[in-house]
Amino acid sequence: MTTALNQQLEFLRTLDALKGVQRASPIISQTRLENSAEHSWHVSMYAITLAEHAPAAVDIGRVIQMLLLHDIVEIDAGDVPLHSGQSTDEQMKAEQLAADRIFGILPLAQRHQLHSLWKEFEAAQTPDARFAKALDRLQPLVQNLATGGGTWTEHSLTEQQVVERYGPQIHQGSPALWRHARKLVADFFATSETF
Amino acid sequence: MTTALNQQLEFLRTLDALKGVQRASPIISQTRLENSAEHSWHVSMYAITLAEHAPAAVDIGRVIQMLLLHDIVEIDAGDVPLHSGQSTDEQMKAEQLAADRIFGILPLAQRHQLHSLWKEFEAAQTPDARFAKALDRLQPLVQNLATGGGTWTEHSLTEQQVVERYGPQIHQGSPALWRHARKLVADFFATSETF
Repeated sequence: MTTALNQQLEFLRTLDALKGVQRASPIISQTRLENSAEHSWHVSMYAITLAEHAPAAVDIGRVIQMLLLHDIVEIDAGDVPLHSGQSTDEQMKAEQLAADRIFGILPLAQRHQLHSLWKEFEAAQTPDARFAKALDRLQPLVQNLATGGGTWTEHSLTEQQVVERYGPQIHQGSPALWRHARKLVADFFATSETF
Repeated sequence: MTTALNQQLEFLRTLDALKGVQRASPIISQTRLENSAEHSWHVSMYAITLAEHAPAAVDIGRVIQMLLLHDIVEIDAGDVPLHSGQSTDEQMKAEQLAADRIFGILPLAQRHQLHSLWKEFEAAQTPDARFAKALDRLQPLVQNLATGGGTWTEHSLTEQQVVERYGPQIHQGSPALWRHARKLVADFFATSETF
């Protein structure tokens, strides 16, 4: 058990670096950008809070676990902002290498279990992964609405672009949440003087 | 549903402020102190990773939910560092008021459900709460070990003081984790030149 526990603590120390990965979205006080560790916490609180809006097949406990670990590959591969237009093929390879290295720190059985959960999230084929992906898109949408446009204003996005970039992923995971978010986006653009 | 969803999103926006609550422990790179949002994420990853060291009665899904929300009262009440020697009675009252306000933003049924989970954590009487409390104490212990002593060095703590301040809470939640942590603490003080 001591060996397993040492590997587990090494994994947990490695994860600390996620606190240093900067995202494009601001925190609501707008004093600085959000980091990926606190984003992962926030989006996990979205899962707890919005569980009732998940399709019936969704296991919210699995969704929370997926969201807690969904970004740890960014420790090696960095965060690619939604509106950066950067290549996704190269990023995907970097993230797969990162997943091999970071999950590889764990004892064998656990390594496969957590790596599989990450792959399931990435593949976005199961109801759990789709709901997790929906929340991962909804959280920055809400941050942007709460900060006068956030990254949308920065990139001068139109309402149509926002709908195209956020809508499919949120709708696929939870039609109910997208119906509501779509209205919030419409209200924002109707009252925003920037656009 | 729209009213409930609006209350839930208001709750989630309110939680954003936890990213601005500073703790006494450093992040491992030692470039800055940890905040309570990223601490909450990290300690939830401790729960996922160390689940096998929990007593048999522990429901790890409940532990994760407790840990995700255990610190949100700090948005109003602030963080009281373990080695600060500050009054706990006054702090407890401030945290209860904070819990009333913050959980009170939620729809009624959910408000009671999440508030109860927080009270269960605070009371530390159930196996789930005790395991959550053990991890909440273990995470800063590991942070301190990984940063050459961290808050222990800062407060010139002896090995005996560290054992007294961390041991009971970790041992009560998981004797196995405390056995291991106790050895790590002994190794640290045996090789540390500061003390």
